[in-house]
Amino acid sequence: MGLHRVVEPAGVLPQAAWRLDARREIAPNEVRIRIERLNLDAASFRQLSEKHGGDGNAVRAEVLDIISTRGKMQNPVTGSGGMLIGTVEEAGRRSPLGFKAGERVATLVSLTLTPLVVTDGLARWDGRSEQVPCDGWAILFARSIAAVLPEDLDPQLSLAVLDVCGAPALTARVVSRYVAERAAQPGGGPVTVAVIGGAGKSGSLSLAAARRAGAGRTVGVVPVAAERDALVAAGLADTVAVADARDPVALSTAVTSALGVPAEVTVVCVDVPGCEHGAVLATADGGTVIFFSMATSFAAAALGAEGLAADVTMLVGNGFVPGHAELALGLLRGEPGVRGLFEARLAAD
Amino acid sequence: MGLHRVVEPAGVLPQAAWRLDARREIAPNEVRIRIERLNLDAASFRQLSEKHGGDGNAVRAEVLDIISTRGKMQNPVTGSGGMLIGTVEEAGRRSPLGFKAGERVATLVSLTLTPLVVTDGLARWDGRSEQVPCDGWAILFARSIAAVLPEDLDPQLSLAVLDVCGAPALTARVVSRYVAERAAQPGGGPVTVAVIGGAGKSGSLSLAAARRAGAGRTVGVVPVAAERDALVAAGLADTVAVADARDPVALSTAVTSALGVPAEVTVVCVDVPGCEHGAVLATADGGTVIFFSMATSFAAAALGAEGLAADVTMLVGNGFVPGHAELALGLLRGEPGVRGLFEARLAAD
Repeated sequence: MGLHRVVEPAGVLPQAAWRLDARREIAPNEVRIRIERLNLDAASFRQLSEKHGGDGNAVRAEVLDIISTRGKMQNPVTGSGGMLIGTVEEAGRRSPLGFKAGERVATLVSLTLTPLVVTDGLARWDGRSEQVPCDGWAILFARSIAAVLPEDLDPQLSLAVLDVCGAPALTARVVSRYVAERAAQPGGGPVTVAVIGGAGKSGSLSLAAARRAGAGRTVGVVPVAAERDALVAAGLADTVAVADARDPVALSTAVTSALGVPAEVTVVCVDVPGCEHGAVLATADGGTVIFFSMATSFAAAALGAEGLAADVTMLVGNGFVPGHAELALGLLRGEPGVRGLFEARLAAD
Repeated sequence: MGLHRVVEPAGVLPQAAWRLDARREIAPNEVRIRIERLNLDAASFRQLSEKHGGDGNAVRAEVLDIISTRGKMQNPVTGSGGMLIGTVEEAGRRSPLGFKAGERVATLVSLTLTPLVVTDGLARWDGRSEQVPCDGWAILFARSIAAVLPEDLDPQLSLAVLDVCGAPALTARVVSRYVAERAAQPGGGPVTVAVIGGAGKSGSLSLAAARRAGAGRTVGVVPVAAERDALVAAGLADTVAVADARDPVALSTAVTSALGVPAEVTVVCVDVPGCEHGAVLATADGGTVIFFSMATSFAAAALGAEGLAADVTMLVGNGFVPGHAELALGLLRGEPGVRGLFEARLAAD
């Protein structure tokens, strides 16, 4: 768990620590990665970029400052981090991860708990994109999750997919349960799913995962016409609706109109604050809301559902589900609509 | 939903609003309550009390300022509120709540979305307790949830129970699901439940609810010896353990030692920040963590589980579950251990 790398405060896990010891020497159960690219969490990058009015140099300086101060990349405001790719430089003899030196890997644990040192001053990054080319090292613990990058895919594409691979896996699990319950009690109509932010990375994968898991009717909600056109072209949702997810009445109206009924499963994939109430309002009694956005407010979700007397199950989107990397990469390979959206997004970055 | 009472920002629901219109005149679907007592949310009261170093006059002044500024009692730091009791003063002819003037009721929706005016300057409150005697009025919307106070119970006792009645109801629902799964696949041993903060209001009710729902082995975790003694005397848990819930290793060790295995269901009922990681570590793969504390950090929970590669389901504790008031009052009436803890707590206030 990396407790020995926690500098302060003592006794917490690395993710909760203010500062980690990122020393280069590894313990017998650790692995050191030579890093080549960070992928900042979308909520974190958005916060930094908005704070500095889009000034890339200022964003870069703050990211460097965070990493050198904290020994990890964890945005102090959003609390979120991101992930990285690199090459295994040294694997401790007691590491259970099974990596060999020279393998190219992506971390599936958050940067918020990964000891990290940047040695090139982020000189190759303009501060205007979530993808940060860099040199330096990172440390993996015994329980850290990482994946060897597939050889058939562009590493940037793999990284973008792996970054959000928990979302389609948990969506598939939840939708499957509703589908199984429906099968046991037929006659209830199709299982309905709404994905808020359906044209984004986690959103498009979640739509594809929901359909594969047996969702009978899906809607992808997007904020603007350009995303609507892209998602319609991708063919991942039965309906695409445009709505501001921060407007509860607009969001729930859009979802209910598109599906004919409220959603049984609502998946929140938009990285802006204030979407909790709309998601709850858009969800049927007995339904489930899965919050994947790091901008989610726990109190807003809990009190919002109570205030609306909404009998919905609300899940904290856990980034770890067994098999999540394979499932997400399989969707990328098998769903041209998903692949098209990811490639367009990378090209635009 | 009370959208017409939102002053700013426009378009959000009352809970998310900065300021509500608390005017005395009611719409046809509203109800006006003459208030007699507020019950501040524990996390909110703790924050205010710590901020002011226990100075009751300063706490009172700030609560008055919040209510007059915002038109509701919502702590700007914790985002949480509380609930109230009072007497129905006027019920609109189209209100679906079924109340009549003169009935004594408790609100089960949060104060964070309840238009509120205090007219006595909180003169009867010393600022040192969550229970705030007061005069003034509050407004209920069509979808607000409220309960007529039972005649067989002290109103303060009912209020304290109703304040947290979502916790035992959701605990019972989740534990029942594990019990049913176990019954379908016998031979797996008893269903194990850990309640963090087991001697508190929501904690003691959750322990009683878990046992009634069929939990085979329960542990209540408390921070200090006095609470341990009280919970042991109440007889609500098979084992009582003392541990600091903010110390992940200490908490998970305490739970696993007490149960012999990690918990299948872990219920977090302590109103201090930083308990997310310990709760995840204390929970078995395939298990569920229910977060009821308003001090829960969404990001800490999501990233913590990912960082630990923990395949646990994490629920945002929804304060509304159908039948929650009746279930909680039933536990109070039927479990002398619960009643004893509540009465001791009220006596100490």
